[in-house]
Amino acid sequence: MVRTPTADDKFSFGLWTVGWTARDQFGEATRPALDPREYATKLAEVGAWGITFHDDDVVPFGSDDATREQILTDFKKTTDEAGLVIEMVTTNLFSHPVFKDGGFTSNDRSVRRFALRKVLRNVDLAASLGASTFVMWGGREGSEYDGVKDVNAALNRYRESVDIVAAYIKEKGYGLRIALEPKPNEPRGDILLPTVGHALGFIAELEHGDIVGLNPETGHEQMAGLNYTHGLGQALWSGKLFHIDLNGQRSIKYDQDLVFGHGDLLSAFFTVDLLENGFPGGGPTYDGPRHYDYKPSRTEGLEGVWDSARANMETYLLLAEKAKAYRADPAVQEAFVTSGVLELSESTLGEGESVADLLADRTAFEDYDADAAGEREYAFVRLNQLAIQHLIG
Amino acid sequence: MVRTPTADDKFSFGLWTVGWTARDQFGEATRPALDPREYATKLAEVGAWGITFHDDDVVPFGSDDATREQILTDFKKTTDEAGLVIEMVTTNLFSHPVFKDGGFTSNDRSVRRFALRKVLRNVDLAASLGASTFVMWGGREGSEYDGVKDVNAALNRYRESVDIVAAYIKEKGYGLRIALEPKPNEPRGDILLPTVGHALGFIAELEHGDIVGLNPETGHEQMAGLNYTHGLGQALWSGKLFHIDLNGQRSIKYDQDLVFGHGDLLSAFFTVDLLENGFPGGGPTYDGPRHYDYKPSRTEGLEGVWDSARANMETYLLLAEKAKAYRADPAVQEAFVTSGVLELSESTLGEGESVADLLADRTAFEDYDADAAGEREYAFVRLNQLAIQHLIG
Amino acid sequence: MVRTPTADDKFSFGLWTVGWTARDQFGEATRPALDPREYATKLAEVGAWGITFHDDDVVPFGSDDATREQILTDFKKTTDEAGLVIEMVTTNLFSHPVFKDGGFTSNDRSVRRFALRKVLRNVDLAASLGASTFVMWGGREGSEYDGVKDVNAALNRYRESVDIVAAYIKEKGYGLRIALEPKPNEPRGDILLPTVGHALGFIAELEHGDIVGLNPETGHEQMAGLNYTHGLGQALWSGKLFHIDLNGQRSIKYDQDLVFGHGDLLSAFFTVDLLENGFPGGGPTYDGPRHYDYKPSRTEGLEGVWDSARANMETYLLLAEKAKAYRADPAVQEAFVTSGVLELSESTLGEGESVADLLADRTAFEDYDADAAGEREYAFVRLNQLAIQHLIG
Amino acid sequence: MVRTPTADDKFSFGLWTVGWTARDQFGEATRPALDPREYATKLAEVGAWGITFHDDDVVPFGSDDATREQILTDFKKTTDEAGLVIEMVTTNLFSHPVFKDGGFTSNDRSVRRFALRKVLRNVDLAASLGASTFVMWGGREGSEYDGVKDVNAALNRYRESVDIVAAYIKEKGYGLRIALEPKPNEPRGDILLPTVGHALGFIAELEHGDIVGLNPETGHEQMAGLNYTHGLGQALWSGKLFHIDLNGQRSIKYDQDLVFGHGDLLSAFFTVDLLENGFPGGGPTYDGPRHYDYKPSRTEGLEGVWDSARANMETYLLLAEKAKAYRADPAVQEAFVTSGVLELSESTLGEGESVADLLADRTAFEDYDADAAGEREYAFVRLNQLAIQHLIG
Repeated sequence: MVRTPTADDKFSFGLWTVGWTARDQFGEATRPALDPREYATKLAEVGAWGITFHDDDVVPFGSDDATREQILTDFKKTTDEAGLVIEMVTTNLFSHPVFKDGGFTSNDRSVRRFALRKVLRNVDLAASLGASTFVMWGGREGSEYDGVKDVNAALNRYRESVDIVAAYIKEKGYGLRIALEPKPNEPRGDILLPTVGHALGFIAELEHGDIVGLNPETGHEQMAGLNYTHGLGQALWSGKLFHIDLNGQRSIKYDQDLVFGHGDLLSAFFTVDLLENGFPGGGPTYDGPRHYDYKPSRTEGLEGVWDSARANMETYLLLAEKAKAYRADPAVQEAFVTSGVLELSESTLGEGESVADLLADRTAFEDYDADAAGEREYAFVRLNQLAIQHLIG
Repeated sequence: MVRTPTADDKFSFGLWTVGWTARDQFGEATRPALDPREYATKLAEVGAWGITFHDDDVVPFGSDDATREQILTDFKKTTDEAGLVIEMVTTNLFSHPVFKDGGFTSNDRSVRRFALRKVLRNVDLAASLGASTFVMWGGREGSEYDGVKDVNAALNRYRESVDIVAAYIKEKGYGLRIALEPKPNEPRGDILLPTVGHALGFIAELEHGDIVGLNPETGHEQMAGLNYTHGLGQALWSGKLFHIDLNGQRSIKYDQDLVFGHGDLLSAFFTVDLLENGFPGGGPTYDGPRHYDYKPSRTEGLEGVWDSARANMETYLLLAEKAKAYRADPAVQEAFVTSGVLELSESTLGEGESVADLLADRTAFEDYDADAAGEREYAFVRLNQLAIQHLIG
Repeated sequence: MVRTPTADDKFSFGLWTVGWTARDQFGEATRPALDPREYATKLAEVGAWGITFHDDDVVPFGSDDATREQILTDFKKTTDEAGLVIEMVTTNLFSHPVFKDGGFTSNDRSVRRFALRKVLRNVDLAASLGASTFVMWGGREGSEYDGVKDVNAALNRYRESVDIVAAYIKEKGYGLRIALEPKPNEPRGDILLPTVGHALGFIAELEHGDIVGLNPETGHEQMAGLNYTHGLGQALWSGKLFHIDLNGQRSIKYDQDLVFGHGDLLSAFFTVDLLENGFPGGGPTYDGPRHYDYKPSRTEGLEGVWDSARANMETYLLLAEKAKAYRADPAVQEAFVTSGVLELSESTLGEGESVADLLADRTAFEDYDADAAGEREYAFVRLNQLAIQHLIG
Repeated sequence: MVRTPTADDKFSFGLWTVGWTARDQFGEATRPALDPREYATKLAEVGAWGITFHDDDVVPFGSDDATREQILTDFKKTTDEAGLVIEMVTTNLFSHPVFKDGGFTSNDRSVRRFALRKVLRNVDLAASLGASTFVMWGGREGSEYDGVKDVNAALNRYRESVDIVAAYIKEKGYGLRIALEPKPNEPRGDILLPTVGHALGFIAELEHGDIVGLNPETGHEQMAGLNYTHGLGQALWSGKLFHIDLNGQRSIKYDQDLVFGHGDLLSAFFTVDLLENGFPGGGPTYDGPRHYDYKPSRTEGLEGVWDSARANMETYLLLAEKAKAYRADPAVQEAFVTSGVLELSESTLGEGESVADLLADRTAFEDYDADAAGEREYAFVRLNQLAIQHLIG
């Protein structure tokens, strides 16, 4: 239906996605756990360019050093042979009971120290494997009850740890950037840094914020009812879109991690349009991996796992084709003008115009016919329908 | 039941709250529109210390200068006589059709210029009336359709305008600070700067961000399923909690603007606990107005308007009493220790400890018994139940 | 792009949709109010087959009988000339202040009696105009506060009134069926009969429930995070899908009333698939009007109004084409088998099998290999991806 | 603080609540699994009157008959000694992989037959243990993708199975009633019978619906943004409130299963008010168990488990005391009159009044002063504030 993926597409998958055995809150695993190397080999076969993982996805928690070394050597050998790039590595600070109140912001200081050590160790690993991004998802950093977590202290500790890790990366000369992954809730009642915005606000308070950015996930923003593409937009505008997690979510509910496009399809179209074609008026663009953080449904067996992996890429490529045609369509370009989409790139003050000049410009206020201006037809529905026509026409 | 409000409580109300005539999306006004001065006088009678308004709440849109002057003089006279502080002023950039696609970020440049002029004029007014806060709620800054708004350009325009206004305030030497009010949606499908976090991230990109902070509203954060008290916490942590809008909301739905405490009561308790008692481990505090942005329900007449205004303050005072007792309770203080609430204020690294020291500390990782640490009883439910006991016991 | 609508498509619009002047909770009207007849004429031009209205949309509230008669005669003349069917009529029990606590369930008995009279009068009108459906949307039947509404009494009053109206319809021999329209909230904090399910449960308690069914609206179900197509499915299964209101909604928030397909597009595809092609395994079908209850966005002028009306129909027709091809695709039919979609139509007990037989069937339990059965590949993701391919491929 | 629970309070707990080992979607168990009998003994100690369980909670899935018999005999002995009533039994049709696409509505017929057998076997057990309620939570009955589940067929199968079980109960002469437990989503993307309403509508289509009712859970309704107390109200009104599941939920998100009252506290007050005091105007009441379906947070150890169990009962008793006082307060009774709460129990037609009489009553319409009636002060905010005063005053 659509061309096969190539390395240029930079499709990458978390090992934990295809490797999920489908054990959920209410039921047992429905799929066997394979050796991590089997997933890697197969991912390359279906068209992936990159692979990513949590430390514990590959090396079981608590393995001794020799075992760890052996496993990692074997895993790297496999990914190399498969031609897979290990583009990102992340740390599991959420599965073991020790992290039940968080890692960097656990109320227990010994846990915080352990978490920091686990992360620093993983930074070394990420660097040694040639990863360029180090993701931090603080899924257990939060609380169910407002009285049990001192938010000010928690953010202080969060900042302390992220700054320590960032400083360590710089000191070691690693080619890594940190990407924070926001999520509003689940598994905690309220998670700290719940949205793209909160993470951006947090980064602004860091000492080493220059190498700290974001890894926004489709479903995580949508779990707060927020517009994912807008979130990507603000992250880009802030120069902080370091990585992305694509998947699907249907409305505000538990984290579904569906295949990309199997959630809000129209939103997915505009996400791809932004990633592939940039903002209509130009500006910062994203050139990183198209990374999937999804879960093959529990009803699927191993065939379904690979069908779903393929579906993620196929849908992206289909949307990319549509988005290309949409932007190239003269009717769309004309609608961009009619609707003022491009006009928004013009600064509000003219070139060289001062506030005093604006205040003196009677056409801007005293003589401005607000009623007439209020009658402008923005024709937004028509422009949106052009997108629909391109998408399903 | 509870003591009457005093000026020290700094209770303040938007003129548009008690002045709402209860016309909604589906129905006509159920209450008459009184002269703004009547609301002011009555607000003082029921215990308010301050009053706030949008320009158009007092002076009808499009009034000529002489009319405007007269109205404002009369209004100021009334508030002075009533002993009301005009602590905040804000601009209506949402009611008139000219703003149907926004003010600062309208796709129409002439609208952006008009909006900027309207705001600058209102800044002069705010300063002349002695207000300390200038709120900006960009309710129409956003879109329903992803393709019609260039988010990068929109944020550029938003930044341009806020910086112009902030620079103007500084240049004029006004004692004003700008407070941005986030909201996720309604009246637009998606509003720019949808949460406390997004606004913090935005402020970090401003040239004059030092005088720009936040005015978080209870219901607006809750409309995104977010924890309002956490939002206040991060704003305080960032030094940006300039003002607050208290009200009530019941779950994720349209903006309800109920009386404070008539929504999520347990959350309201912890909001008041934070505002009155600060973070458990100390840190930045809020000393500004306790400002209400609510709507007396459409079923109420004028008596109901004043009953509801009183209810806002009464509930706050009741919660403040409870929160005081909660914090003073030795059982709570002991629980703070047991649950590690205060332990979170200890830095993760020891005083003078370097990362190298941490890496060399075998007790932090190699010899750390994660399983044993995972068995710690945090006793969070017990602490939360202590809050419940104080609240309803 | 797609064929033009015909009468066979039974596209119909509420007069209040294209007639909405775009006054919302936060702003003034942005479009002029035309004479109702102008909307009717134009609707016919753009391809509508039917038109519907609230009494007050055509005849201003409180008009005297002569005026009312004249207006209605003129209106009917226009719709006749335009070839429009008046397929549904509904009553406005929400705009006037008298209904601020509801109509049929207002705490005020005099209001309930007035509401009942207004509805009965409107039933006569609906019958005289040849409508087949009489919709009841109880938007004000509900409350913001749990203590102010006796839900048992309210449901008693609701039942009383609906039964009275239904009995009246029967007594008069009108060819009308009542269709209840559920909505979870807005304008009330909680509305009675909030979902398709609650209305079905309510109808089961009616004396004259045989002529009472449902008018489910896309966005209303989605405002509760529910699956609209599932709602239609249960209504059909219950023999109660009397009418539909199509529109678009993006996640759980205020009632957006977007163009159909401009919300959750994938869900819209399956809605159309159900309406056009029925259930995969057969069963009850819907043959009524494809009725739109949407609002042209406030940014649109009159051109945008008609663009949006056309967009509703165009999107439906596009989806109908896609759904037809999807069902006809042998790969989809094969997937229906593989995934067991058709197997679900087989009864769980065999023909003539008794419970005793089942209990005696050792293959069903004692000898059943649950672990092996648990390994079945349902291949649901692949089937869903086939839908995506048809939709955007 | 509050009196200790007694048998008259009918507090009962699911074995799976205190027995939850806190393994969640993202992490391992943080608590050991005790022998079921230990939980039972301890539940009695902390004040429970009843206990409930899924078959697999007590007897591991797949146990042979002898083992099963032995375990059940021992368990019954323990509950008898502890004085615990086994008031409800339910079937686990969700944990084992065989149920990954549901039990009664699995696309696989062999699974449906197996599920039916598992349930019938459990009915025998429930009856033999003296339970009065048999709960059915169809957590896996649903889908993630609209195209993979034929909703009509699914509801046919659901009806078939529930009717078979109900007929079996009648045939055997068991003193059991079935209670369906709705939930909107999680673990499936969309669950069939998502709300109280949908289940009521479903029951109306059953052949043996007379012994089928509801078991509404606080958090499940709130996950759809619905008012739980309203849900209980409609279930009571329909004569179908057979059982309840109390817990706490904070807004629309994953299923939190917090302690009752640790979610929406004001809503919990009105829930208890309804359960303890009935509707203000009288009507059907609930006299069954006060059953908790909650989860002790993952941060808690075994002490926290029992603290949380106690907290559930303590909060209920505190709220019951408050609700008693609220209803007894003359100011509240007076407000019920002022606000028309009691007036709603008056029928809309007078005694003996016919529709013809109503149509002839000019005071009801022709001479009715709607504008004047629209000015009525319902004083709902004041009544709600009285509740707040009782709750926290």
